[in-house]
Amino acid sequence: MAVAETTRSRLAAVSTATLTTVLFKRGLRNTFMQGVRAINPDAPRMVGPAYTLRYIPAREDLDHLGVFTDRSHPQRKGVEECPPGHVFVIDSRRNPAAASAGGILVTRLWKRGVAGIVTDGGFRDTPHIARLPFPAYHAAPAAPTNLIRHHAVDLNAPIACGEVPVYPGDIIVGDGEGVVVIPQQIADEVAVEAFEQTLFEDFVQEKVEEGRSIFGIYPHSGEALEEFARWREKSKR
Amino acid sequence: MAVAETTRSRLAAVSTATLTTVLFKRGLRNTFMQGVRAINPDAPRMVGPAYTLRYIPAREDLDHLGVFTDRSHPQRKGVEECPPGHVFVIDSRRNPAAASAGGILVTRLWKRGVAGIVTDGGFRDTPHIARLPFPAYHAAPAAPTNLIRHHAVDLNAPIACGEVPVYPGDIIVGDGEGVVVIPQQIADEVAVEAFEQTLFEDFVQEKVEEGRSIFGIYPHSGEALEEFARWREKSKR
Amino acid sequence: MAVAETTRSRLAAVSTATLTTVLFKRGLRNTFMQGVRAINPDAPRMVGPAYTLRYIPAREDLDHLGVFTDRSHPQRKGVEECPPGHVFVIDSRRNPAAASAGGILVTRLWKRGVAGIVTDGGFRDTPHIARLPFPAYHAAPAAPTNLIRHHAVDLNAPIACGEVPVYPGDIIVGDGEGVVVIPQQIADEVAVEAFEQTLFEDFVQEKVEEGRSIFGIYPHSGEALEEFARWREKSKR
Amino acid sequence: MAVAETTRSRLAAVSTATLTTVLFKRGLRNTFMQGVRAINPDAPRMVGPAYTLRYIPAREDLDHLGVFTDRSHPQRKGVEECPPGHVFVIDSRRNPAAASAGGILVTRLWKRGVAGIVTDGGFRDTPHIARLPFPAYHAAPAAPTNLIRHHAVDLNAPIACGEVPVYPGDIIVGDGEGVVVIPQQIADEVAVEAFEQTLFEDFVQEKVEEGRSIFGIYPHSGEALEEFARWREKSKR
Amino acid sequence: MAVAETTRSRLAAVSTATLTTVLFKRGLRNTFMQGVRAINPDAPRMVGPAYTLRYIPAREDLDHLGVFTDRSHPQRKGVEECPPGHVFVIDSRRNPAAASAGGILVTRLWKRGVAGIVTDGGFRDTPHIARLPFPAYHAAPAAPTNLIRHHAVDLNAPIACGEVPVYPGDIIVGDGEGVVVIPQQIADEVAVEAFEQTLFEDFVQEKVEEGRSIFGIYPHSGEALEEFARWREKSKR
Amino acid sequence: MAVAETTRSRLAAVSTATLTTVLFKRGLRNTFMQGVRAINPDAPRMVGPAYTLRYIPAREDLDHLGVFTDRSHPQRKGVEECPPGHVFVIDSRRNPAAASAGGILVTRLWKRGVAGIVTDGGFRDTPHIARLPFPAYHAAPAAPTNLIRHHAVDLNAPIACGEVPVYPGDIIVGDGEGVVVIPQQIADEVAVEAFEQTLFEDFVQEKVEEGRSIFGIYPHSGEALEEFARWREKSKR
Repeated sequence: MAVAETTRSRLAAVSTATLTTVLFKRGLRNTFMQGVRAINPDAPRMVGPAYTLRYIPAREDLDHLGVFTDRSHPQRKGVEECPPGHVFVIDSRRNPAAASAGGILVTRLWKRGVAGIVTDGGFRDTPHIARLPFPAYHAAPAAPTNLIRHHAVDLNAPIACGEVPVYPGDIIVGDGEGVVVIPQQIADEVAVEAFEQTLFEDFVQEKVEEGRSIFGIYPHSGEALEEFARWREKSKR
Repeated sequence: MAVAETTRSRLAAVSTATLTTVLFKRGLRNTFMQGVRAINPDAPRMVGPAYTLRYIPAREDLDHLGVFTDRSHPQRKGVEECPPGHVFVIDSRRNPAAASAGGILVTRLWKRGVAGIVTDGGFRDTPHIARLPFPAYHAAPAAPTNLIRHHAVDLNAPIACGEVPVYPGDIIVGDGEGVVVIPQQIADEVAVEAFEQTLFEDFVQEKVEEGRSIFGIYPHSGEALEEFARWREKSKR
Repeated sequence: MAVAETTRSRLAAVSTATLTTVLFKRGLRNTFMQGVRAINPDAPRMVGPAYTLRYIPAREDLDHLGVFTDRSHPQRKGVEECPPGHVFVIDSRRNPAAASAGGILVTRLWKRGVAGIVTDGGFRDTPHIARLPFPAYHAAPAAPTNLIRHHAVDLNAPIACGEVPVYPGDIIVGDGEGVVVIPQQIADEVAVEAFEQTLFEDFVQEKVEEGRSIFGIYPHSGEALEEFARWREKSKR
Repeated sequence: MAVAETTRSRLAAVSTATLTTVLFKRGLRNTFMQGVRAINPDAPRMVGPAYTLRYIPAREDLDHLGVFTDRSHPQRKGVEECPPGHVFVIDSRRNPAAASAGGILVTRLWKRGVAGIVTDGGFRDTPHIARLPFPAYHAAPAAPTNLIRHHAVDLNAPIACGEVPVYPGDIIVGDGEGVVVIPQQIADEVAVEAFEQTLFEDFVQEKVEEGRSIFGIYPHSGEALEEFARWREKSKR
Repeated sequence: MAVAETTRSRLAAVSTATLTTVLFKRGLRNTFMQGVRAINPDAPRMVGPAYTLRYIPAREDLDHLGVFTDRSHPQRKGVEECPPGHVFVIDSRRNPAAASAGGILVTRLWKRGVAGIVTDGGFRDTPHIARLPFPAYHAAPAAPTNLIRHHAVDLNAPIACGEVPVYPGDIIVGDGEGVVVIPQQIADEVAVEAFEQTLFEDFVQEKVEEGRSIFGIYPHSGEALEEFARWREKSKR
Repeated sequence: MAVAETTRSRLAAVSTATLTTVLFKRGLRNTFMQGVRAINPDAPRMVGPAYTLRYIPAREDLDHLGVFTDRSHPQRKGVEECPPGHVFVIDSRRNPAAASAGGILVTRLWKRGVAGIVTDGGFRDTPHIARLPFPAYHAAPAAPTNLIRHHAVDLNAPIACGEVPVYPGDIIVGDGEGVVVIPQQIADEVAVEAFEQTLFEDFVQEKVEEGRSIFGIYPHSGEALEEFARWREKSKR
């Protein structure tokens, strides 16, 4: 279920914007999480298979501070068991009224080698999380403990996050723009195509910065492809 | 997991408003589904244990019309397997952009003796559903087939519905006002208390309709309780 | 602070739509409550000066069932003290997660001769309220007791309701479309003008139903005014 | 640009739910207007080509009561020029804070033989409109005159309505559930297919009402198709 | 009504996240303002008793530029009278369509020694406010003058802010995450407990950064408490 | 249709907050775009006449990647034809689910000398756009290509943006707070008045920073005007 290293490095070198276009060409339109943003824009790129946690609303008799002493509590268990290199993705029903996780758990994930964390709710201790070299994405800061609004119910089941479906093992990629979900079985080919497309977009970007019109190169004519081939050879990419 | 007949008949005789007060006295504040309303106000009262279906967002490669030929598809399987007397409750992430179910499936549930159906999304064929003697609750009419936005993923797992937690077996009660969720293990005692409270509220309602001030009877003083005892004896309730 | 009987009868004979136009001519644009609708379309028209109640969010240590035994609790006090002929208007911060009031209190207001009740939150016991010959307006049914979300804090202070300002004594008018707020000091002249405008609109409506084009009569040309004068004389209005 | 009579009668005999499925089979997912509902459920079915009006937000110096004296004002012009049999569709940016149209204009459209009216904002005079034998769809009642919030800017340009694209001439169909938009060039074939599909669904509905399981008939097996053929012959449809 | 200096310094040293947990232990769940964020993350911590201002919607005849010449206008009066060390908290009905206050008034509060300002609407002149060494919290920038949408009506009455109740004198604490409201009478003990809890969390954070599992220390076992005691002694905190 | 250079430089020296006040004095209340914010706070001020693009929702058969090869596609055509010095303003129905434009097109606009770009939806490639010395305003990052949700339909027609009307040629001004729209024909006089008002506000700001009360100078008394005159003379502004 791991992601191949070449795929990981390609995905870390392309933007979520480019990835959504490659996925759109395959008929997938709903791949970019709505309302989810990076806490620390200086964190490294986030790439890894999804490991999921699902919340339902809390109930006062079930959700009290005592629950965390149980080592099988899904939130705590997940934080200790999410495989290194994976992305911890949380379905919080887009509700940031209570925290999906906080600074200590996020630190533990980081130290365990997890690749990043995403919720469509909110995190607490966000000023601290913003200083970690660890990618974290949420909807809004949420100081209250999760017990006030969320009950952890499942680990590694299919979930919704930011109104996008996330199946465990799907490849999650995050950059400064947001988070995209790539179905596991097409991740390798999407990575290859996005990497190629990025080269071409870099070429176009360079030409447009030199003052070129977009007509003829974006989208490209046949001539532009030849020019691109020369540019690519010259720039050794 | 069935609900005792005395409990069922008591719950069918009290309002969701009274039930939320009895639950509030036990510390439960979040028991009334938000944004969910009755399609047919003339349908019978809805009382029964929850049987749940969970949707996540659809994905174009997985959710096409062919999926329904699979008899293990959770939506179709659930419609045939939900036990008679139970309430079919659907987590649709409060999204009515596509149907949670339609007229044929709702008819099948009704004919199978199911007690009612609830979604926090929407139903299709609502003009037809509105004419069935079967309680159905949703957020808004939703003509498009569920495949456009919803992927059925789980049967009988804990879910969110109208931002209330629903555990399979919880007792679901619906009236003309909306839907309340009662934790299974306290349903009997809640039914008893709500039934008693309803008697008292009927007494108060009668007195207020006769022109009495609410002071002294709502909430009640000791004297009002004596008067209520006489009223109850006289009205043989 | 009462409303003159002639003004009351004129306001009961015109629509909220016409009233908003007359108010717009005086520079008032924000007079129709947003998101507030009639529970019982068969209730009589609602006309009367505003008597207001303001809620802020509840706090668990302050808002428990014991508070209602205090006769000075603003919600209960207001229900007993709102003058007959007035409209009870509640600022619930547009939040229908808990009830602004319920069937017993609404019945008490009705029996006391109050002219109607409005909240921008929700009522509980709405199936019962819908059967009373008493105008009640809200955003959505709300079974839970107000204590879960609302704390009554003020009587007869200026409030917001449906994002419209309501000053105590402002004239509140409700019909099957919704609720409009008329500043107290211009209510008499607004009533006169709206009554006249309604006559003209009835004339136009009749002509349009006969097949006439709107050009020339809506808005009116000089000729149309003459025709209207003859129509009015003939129809003795 | 008119719709063929056979197509019109077929579309009047099928539901918006069935139509969205037929459109989904052609790859069109976004065809049902969000948040738009029928004012009068007893009105006849609405079928006709779209004639569109677009609003942008009002500006105080441009949008005063005097504008309606201008016969070229798009709202008034459109009401007089919308061809009989067409549906008048209004882009109100999903904003019901002011009326898209009112009772007199709706009456005029009805008398002129227009097939119906739709806005994703609101109408004024809705109690009156609800009594007309004329299909009207909106988001919420809106008493204030359109000038307070809307400026009519275009007639018969492509618009958004309920977040669905509407091109002039697209076939608009409304039933008790809501409104669907059919691209003009496929309307005839969609009508044929939906009519056929409705027959089959009527057959399934009848069988399910008789107690049949959905498995084998919904979706259908080969045997079910043979049974359907016999049913169809027998019921002469 | 002032806050004790020891309490103030403790509250300035703990996070809003920790405070919400301490308040949750006392049964208070709704203490963190929703949708309110810091304008200047570099400003000092905000701690102080609440001094409140309440807005209702504006009305064109009452809310014109002339109102500010009146020295008793609540907004202007409040800015001059809010006691030093207090936090100026504004109920703007979560509406950022017009400013709750602007750069000059915020500067005046800062110079007068006020501890900070909070609105659940928006401020104008936010680029300027962001450069002041003064904590300011809002929902979104709002260039238009408050008169366009807000009417100042009350000083120092109980209000809602971010859907949290705020009573004058409640202790308001803000950090980079957001704003929490502490009931006045428990502020001292909450400060003590939060300060102690912060020490323990710092210990846990340090251990987790060293690579320790959360099991055993978060939440703590008995052994962890002993280890914490040694750590505390050693680090002299 | 160009903006005079003196007007441009005055508008670049005043804040959007001041401009909304000057427009409010002329009766214009709805001039500040709701929900639209700067991507790069370090970009220069944005001032220029509006050049507009309108999107309606996409339709799968019309909106595929092939459309961009058509040089008359409104989005691409607009990017090449928007006059230098103008602001490119896009009506995206406040929907950031797909991009209104991306990094390459924004770069092209910048290189062509366009003054800035605004959408009430979202841009893609926002990390790149944030580094350009070019003012760009949107609601939220939106990685997916516009085809997924938007269909470009009009160039230079009146549009809505952030629920403000924008007529081609209206003067658009953006600062770190947001975007204001000035009707073209009053732009010169608004610029003059705002420039003067800014001088006075700078004077007040300076005095308030020195510790002066707002009473007497904000709003100003006659004496304050004299003091301002002396200040102005001394500071040679």
